[in-house]
Amino acid sequence: MSTTEISAGAQALVARYIEMWNEPSPAARAALIEQTLTDSATYVDPMASTEGAEQLNALIDAVQEQFTGYRFTLHSGPEIHHNCVRFSWALGTDASTPAAVGTDVAELAEDGRMCNVIGFLESTPS
Amino acid sequence: MSTTEISAGAQALVARYIEMWNEPSPAARAALIEQTLTDSATYVDPMASTEGAEQLNALIDAVQEQFTGYRFTLHSGPEIHHNCVRFSWALGTDASTPAAVGTDVAELAEDGRMCNVIGFLESTPS
Repeated sequence: MSTTEISAGAQALVARYIEMWNEPSPAARAALIEQTLTDSATYVDPMASTEGAEQLNALIDAVQEQFTGYRFTLHSGPEIHHNCVRFSWALGTDASTPAAVGTDVAELAEDGRMCNVIGFLESTPS
Repeated sequence: MSTTEISAGAQALVARYIEMWNEPSPAARAALIEQTLTDSATYVDPMASTEGAEQLNALIDAVQEQFTGYRFTLHSGPEIHHNCVRFSWALGTDASTPAAVGTDVAELAEDGRMCNVIGFLESTPS
């Protein structure tokens, strides 16, 4: 693949990852998870740690319940090199200062899906 | 381990990681690498990718040759959660604007050493 193709693939992958976090239907979300992460993918952030699609789906459910009315948006990136992608996301309601901003680093499997996601939170914007 | 112990361990680990990048003697550096990373640890940044101590030692040699007179310093962090550490470093000469700033995310093995390091560059400070 050319750098342009890899970059376009990463853009689409990260857009789908954000969409996955916003998807309210567990069934539709399961389909997005399958398209975005490998079956045994690990996910870890300061509050949670999951392995596999089912645990991740349950985590997203819990986060959506805690932050009703909030949506994730892409804040910056993605940047990509080798099999690694980095991007920042924001969680907020429309047209307001985000409640949280975080940065995720994901490793991609050979099939292009994420196999390992490590998230950190940035300082909450004032 | 308590959070305080984990945090103190991460501080020491990252300090040693920075020292390792600055160490001019390949033999002394090999000892620092062994204390800091597992034998089969993977390292990747936008310019390089290594697996194991020998390849990492050779990479550090090449970087030191390219940036003679420069030193790495800790720029921010470390932050830690679960088995993950994030920190930023700067590469520069004394008392000048750094030539480069980067952020590394490292996963730690059960023995506390890094087993996987993923680095990204921040925009070069103006």
